[in-house]
Amino acid sequence: MNILVINSGSSSLKYKLFNMDEEKVLVSGVAERIGGEHSFIKHENHEKTIINVNLPNHKAALKEVLNLLMDAKLGAIKNLSEIDAVGHRILHGQEAFSESVILDQEKVETLKGFIEMGPLHMPANIGGIEACFSLMPDTPQIGAFDTAFHATIPAKAHLYALPYELYEKYKIRRYGFHGTSHKFVANRAAKFLGRPLESLKMITLHLGNGSSVAAVEDGKCIDTSMGFTPLEGLVMGTRCGDMDPAIVPFIGKKLNMTPDEVDELMNKKSGLKGFTGISNDMRDIQQAKEEGNKLAQLVYEMFIYRIVKYIGAYTAALGGLDVMVFTAGIGENDFEARKDICEKLSFMDIKIDEKLNNGLRGKETRLTAADSKVEVLLIPTNEELSIALDTYRLVNNKK
Amino acid sequence: MNILVINSGSSSLKYKLFNMDEEKVLVSGVAERIGGEHSFIKHENHEKTIINVNLPNHKAALKEVLNLLMDAKLGAIKNLSEIDAVGHRILHGQEAFSESVILDQEKVETLKGFIEMGPLHMPANIGGIEACFSLMPDTPQIGAFDTAFHATIPAKAHLYALPYELYEKYKIRRYGFHGTSHKFVANRAAKFLGRPLESLKMITLHLGNGSSVAAVEDGKCIDTSMGFTPLEGLVMGTRCGDMDPAIVPFIGKKLNMTPDEVDELMNKKSGLKGFTGISNDMRDIQQAKEEGNKLAQLVYEMFIYRIVKYIGAYTAALGGLDVMVFTAGIGENDFEARKDICEKLSFMDIKIDEKLNNGLRGKETRLTAADSKVEVLLIPTNEELSIALDTYRLVNNKK
Repeated sequence: MNILVINSGSSSLKYKLFNMDEEKVLVSGVAERIGGEHSFIKHENHEKTIINVNLPNHKAALKEVLNLLMDAKLGAIKNLSEIDAVGHRILHGQEAFSESVILDQEKVETLKGFIEMGPLHMPANIGGIEACFSLMPDTPQIGAFDTAFHATIPAKAHLYALPYELYEKYKIRRYGFHGTSHKFVANRAAKFLGRPLESLKMITLHLGNGSSVAAVEDGKCIDTSMGFTPLEGLVMGTRCGDMDPAIVPFIGKKLNMTPDEVDELMNKKSGLKGFTGISNDMRDIQQAKEEGNKLAQLVYEMFIYRIVKYIGAYTAALGGLDVMVFTAGIGENDFEARKDICEKLSFMDIKIDEKLNNGLRGKETRLTAADSKVEVLLIPTNEELSIALDTYRLVNNKK
Repeated sequence: MNILVINSGSSSLKYKLFNMDEEKVLVSGVAERIGGEHSFIKHENHEKTIINVNLPNHKAALKEVLNLLMDAKLGAIKNLSEIDAVGHRILHGQEAFSESVILDQEKVETLKGFIEMGPLHMPANIGGIEACFSLMPDTPQIGAFDTAFHATIPAKAHLYALPYELYEKYKIRRYGFHGTSHKFVANRAAKFLGRPLESLKMITLHLGNGSSVAAVEDGKCIDTSMGFTPLEGLVMGTRCGDMDPAIVPFIGKKLNMTPDEVDELMNKKSGLKGFTGISNDMRDIQQAKEEGNKLAQLVYEMFIYRIVKYIGAYTAALGGLDVMVFTAGIGENDFEARKDICEKLSFMDIKIDEKLNNGLRGKETRLTAADSKVEVLLIPTNEELSIALDTYRLVNNKK
């Protein structure tokens, strides 16, 4: 059985084609800088290939990807019927979806109602699903939700101090995102350490273009930095993260902006890129910082400082800390950021082996220093495998 | 020299008349529930008197207060000329005022430009100043700013990850409030412990109808929970505090509200009162909780949980913690809240003497348990004395 997993980010589309019988990846890749300049597909079968191609939107990217899968030289299948099911990473399940489901047109319509809760990702997710319905109408489509892992967050942490009827009527509450990733790395971390997940207080740091922190107690998420939408929390590529909510009406009035325009400002024109005017990519910020750009230096300090505060806050929420996990683009590759975060936490006896950390990218590694009380791990996230397993289970009618 | 200090809160007006030569309080009191039902003045000279009186707004309250000061039986002066200067607590000094100043009409006009930054307090503050200009035109009026103590917060903590030009053009940044209180209790705490302020990592918890936390390192504020306006941070009497900023445009669209209406919802119709529909007063919430009200129980848990997270976050920001200080209405009087906060922090070796804490209200006390690594103090705030000293210094042309 072959399962294709589609993971659409705000400006990227990851794909992986799994042969589940042999538990192996046939081909994989990522379309990057979708909607931006210099877009390309990094494709991998036996070897890696870079395909420079214009990718104006996610649907166009998916078409290119499906063609690649069937390519005589670079692909793994001859026609689309060899794909038995598609698993889609979906941003928002609201309270309607707290676990993975088989998608149909009705469920897609339900999902469209959540676009306002995730204006950056939901259109990409739904576009991907609809493109699959259109290009492979007889293939089962499964949705795995970024919010599902966070369903265990207790009311004191998932409710906002707004009138309670706003929760009852409009479901305004913290949902949290990146759940598939937080869940995957939390599970991997426990296995890697050979310790039962049910005995660990853990903080998982998913640091990428979108970033979030989760507090995981005994394998269950008890809090996370993203909220009603993926805007809340850390400083991100183009998102501002936490700020005084009174700034929103202030900006609306001062700049004469509609609610949608302010939302777009906060989601697409803020964060690393909006603050510096340079780029949403931390690699570009790091480079600008090294070249002496003061705004790049400042936004990097803001990025690190806010992560450090969240780690402190979640350690208090957990009542202690056993394991801290770095994952996703920045978490896996930016060893300077890992070093700067851990240095500020040395008072908590969080210490990493700096020699081991220096230069390390994307490899499952125990970074813990000999005199650290907290285990610090680098665990590459694998949301796609997690989604493939859910998809396999659902199309085989297994519980 | 007699100095009258006026401290207007969102629904209260505190006053204290000091004789600075003898360093004593002549009379004091507080007008409460201004703009609400059952408003009253709690007045104190030799004894305490409750005067039930309709107080539709802050100007009406000030008139009643000035009459009380001149009352033959309850007052301390015969006419208003015996007041040599008035010190006003002012919410917002923006970047224009980073220390106390002598007020004139021009400065009051400048202050009016900051109303949008503190819609709950600035009109009350300005109303109080203008009432004094009108009722005692020859008396110097001094402004002491709630934001001044926070001027030392570094850029990485006072900037939001919005486009940098929003800071340059509109001064959108974290200001912080309750500065006079945080400064006063931080100084008192160091004196009380007989330790130099310049060697301490301290967290000050000002918990009242408005609540905020400050992180104080070597006597200087390095971060605080309130932000551009007093809305950000903790769950408060009528304010929501922290939430996903994307909720603001969402509510605006869903409920068809103007920016001002959403602002009012977040500032006046949220928090303890808005969530429960019961009251903005923690005493009423505690009572409802004891009577089994589930929303009261929930909002209390949210209130405590968010404080605990801030303490964790600021301990990380400070790189450790030596002293924690409780102050203001809830901090000084709600021993159950103090107990519940400290219990959740026992993993950090923050422990209080529960016997000492139980039932304790409003008295300067070292609550630290024998096995606590962090000193925990109850320090009643005295913003009025702090403002009186600034006022005295300024009218005597002293630096």
